[in-house]
Amino acid sequence: MNFAGRMDFLQDKELLNAMELTETEDMISFSAGFPSPETYPVEDIKESFIKVLENEGKEALSYCSTSGYGTLREIIAKRMQDKFGLQYDKSEVIITSGSQQALDMSGMLFIDKGDVILFETPSYLGAVNALKAYEAELVAVPTDHDGIQIDALKEALDRYGSRVKLIYVIPDFQNPTGRSWSPERRKEFMDFIGDYDIAVLEDAAYSELSFEEQLEKPLSYYDKKGQVVYVGTFSKTFCPGLRVAWLCARHEIMEKYLILKNAADLSSSAIAQRQMAYYLQHHDLDAHIKKISKLYQERRDTMMKVIAQEFPKEAHYVVPKGGLFIWMELPENKDARELLKRAYAEKVAFIPGGSFYPSGVKNNEMRLNFSNMSEEEIRKGMRILGRLTREYLLEK
Amino acid sequence: MNFAGRMDFLQDKELLNAMELTETEDMISFSAGFPSPETYPVEDIKESFIKVLENEGKEALSYCSTSGYGTLREIIAKRMQDKFGLQYDKSEVIITSGSQQALDMSGMLFIDKGDVILFETPSYLGAVNALKAYEAELVAVPTDHDGIQIDALKEALDRYGSRVKLIYVIPDFQNPTGRSWSPERRKEFMDFIGDYDIAVLEDAAYSELSFEEQLEKPLSYYDKKGQVVYVGTFSKTFCPGLRVAWLCARHEIMEKYLILKNAADLSSSAIAQRQMAYYLQHHDLDAHIKKISKLYQERRDTMMKVIAQEFPKEAHYVVPKGGLFIWMELPENKDARELLKRAYAEKVAFIPGGSFYPSGVKNNEMRLNFSNMSEEEIRKGMRILGRLTREYLLEK
Repeated sequence: MNFAGRMDFLQDKELLNAMELTETEDMISFSAGFPSPETYPVEDIKESFIKVLENEGKEALSYCSTSGYGTLREIIAKRMQDKFGLQYDKSEVIITSGSQQALDMSGMLFIDKGDVILFETPSYLGAVNALKAYEAELVAVPTDHDGIQIDALKEALDRYGSRVKLIYVIPDFQNPTGRSWSPERRKEFMDFIGDYDIAVLEDAAYSELSFEEQLEKPLSYYDKKGQVVYVGTFSKTFCPGLRVAWLCARHEIMEKYLILKNAADLSSSAIAQRQMAYYLQHHDLDAHIKKISKLYQERRDTMMKVIAQEFPKEAHYVVPKGGLFIWMELPENKDARELLKRAYAEKVAFIPGGSFYPSGVKNNEMRLNFSNMSEEEIRKGMRILGRLTREYLLEK
Repeated sequence: MNFAGRMDFLQDKELLNAMELTETEDMISFSAGFPSPETYPVEDIKESFIKVLENEGKEALSYCSTSGYGTLREIIAKRMQDKFGLQYDKSEVIITSGSQQALDMSGMLFIDKGDVILFETPSYLGAVNALKAYEAELVAVPTDHDGIQIDALKEALDRYGSRVKLIYVIPDFQNPTGRSWSPERRKEFMDFIGDYDIAVLEDAAYSELSFEEQLEKPLSYYDKKGQVVYVGTFSKTFCPGLRVAWLCARHEIMEKYLILKNAADLSSSAIAQRQMAYYLQHHDLDAHIKKISKLYQERRDTMMKVIAQEFPKEAHYVVPKGGLFIWMELPENKDARELLKRAYAEKVAFIPGGSFYPSGVKNNEMRLNFSNMSEEEIRKGMRILGRLTREYLLEK
């Protein structure tokens, strides 16, 4: 059988494997970027489903409009205004089936074969997979502790010129590094990119999972000409099993997304959207987020403690102030894939850093998720990983 | 802002509008291909959601594996064997977010820009939209009362040669015409196409909605070399609001679909899939389908009766033996879009036939859905439409 040319690019199965590994029982897995299932407010969700089916069962089981359930879109728009000062009208919000679908549709909307997409690097593997499918050249732009590097960005724009159609960034508690852009860098970036006619895809999946009081203003907040496409999701703050996320864009762009959403799956699940709206109207999502952020902060602390005790000092890392991940760097001559092999043998898993490079792969890094395992599992798994790392680093 | 080239092809908003019109209150709409909401087994679905959340809440609210919930895939595989004699292993079944997503992914998998897709014509607008996005040339192959015309198919294959990568067909109670392929034509088609290395996308959305005892064997049943990709859905037999459908393909092809599903949205909703599995294990979907088929048959009969009484004899149609649609043909110099304008003014809607042509548009036809309105609404709306048609046909 003949397949489309794009299939030649889509060979990286790391994320796929990470997802399938979730079904392996006795693995201590620091791989996947999952929230912790014991935090799900199962009872409240059950109540919401019951109420939705009792009050509006027929509507909840029918097709939804392509843009999504109006009430939910209104609540989301208001919530983003309250939290981040973002001014989106309900008509500038569309519901997507997870934020992954929003990334996929963005490739569909902006990318022709041979176009260039700039990636803050390292970057989210799922975005790399989704956007690779549109046969773009993915170009890495390095990020430092304050965010994407503006001089490197300028260099890439000079080099690739009008071929650049999209810039993909995760300014808050970035996947995989856990870093956040400073407010100054956000402003600098938006000032700079405002001179170009290029769409910016802002992935805000982790933005609300902060361990500090103050949330940062998104890039979209500084956007004067409507070039930012903002993507949010309930998958990390609530639960991923409903597949309810959203995309915000100004009208000219939103019109096009609507056409693509319709082509992609007609509409997202009506009952999942109405359940979410009911929950938001009758329960306190902010209190829930506060609770899980506290839990994740404790787990981060536990992981940090074991790292400090058990890992060799040649393993570098930064303490993340939110999100789900720690990023660890081994000496340059070391390969995290080799370490992973040894870890698998002792039933511990993580994702080697090479998977997060859209181009110019480095293999001496690794991503460690701290949200999804219990403190006991974190202690046990990280001790094993620490010992294996020590042993590996001692080898020539 | 610069958009991808494909956006120039995606201007047809007919389906989008039909979906949005569902939210207009006082319209008698024969437009959309929706099942009738009062048939949804709301109580049983509620019970299923409750049980799933009580018994397996954490799993149901987490990410699902990319291929879909194993138990559901097993049940679907067994069901297809029992009903249609199809032999698919669980690993050859993937869950998709509505069958629309299966169509979209099929474009992604098989189509490069400039390839040719052959469409049994007229055809499902959603498939046209989904596949157009991959910048294929869509070529219409005419269908007669027995199915796609083999000599016209051969002609198209001779003409376009190796550019043809996919053939899209709906052998059962086709959308929009309501026609079904004869068993002989199915065999003839599969014998013929078996000599080509071209994928066949079999859309079985309406296959179980039969008004007769016997279900026809799908094309996939006659497939000797694994070239058929079979797409089924619960949207028409159960309810569309869950967005649970499935795609079956042999291993070599399935591997690729898995990569694409992962890129598209990671996985379909875990809770929707588990709810569906619970329902299938604890309730009788076949009895439900029998009940709704009887209801739709009665509505078809009502619509037929009004057509016989109120429509001019120049309006041609065939009585469908299943599915959701009647296809009506006006004299060739007449335009269904003009008729629709007048119908809208009297709060009656349908979809003009031109929307169902991937190429070589004809405008003297119309699609009438009979599943979604009550008998009273059907009588009222069809009387109005009959009068408007009589008046319109009297004009020069």
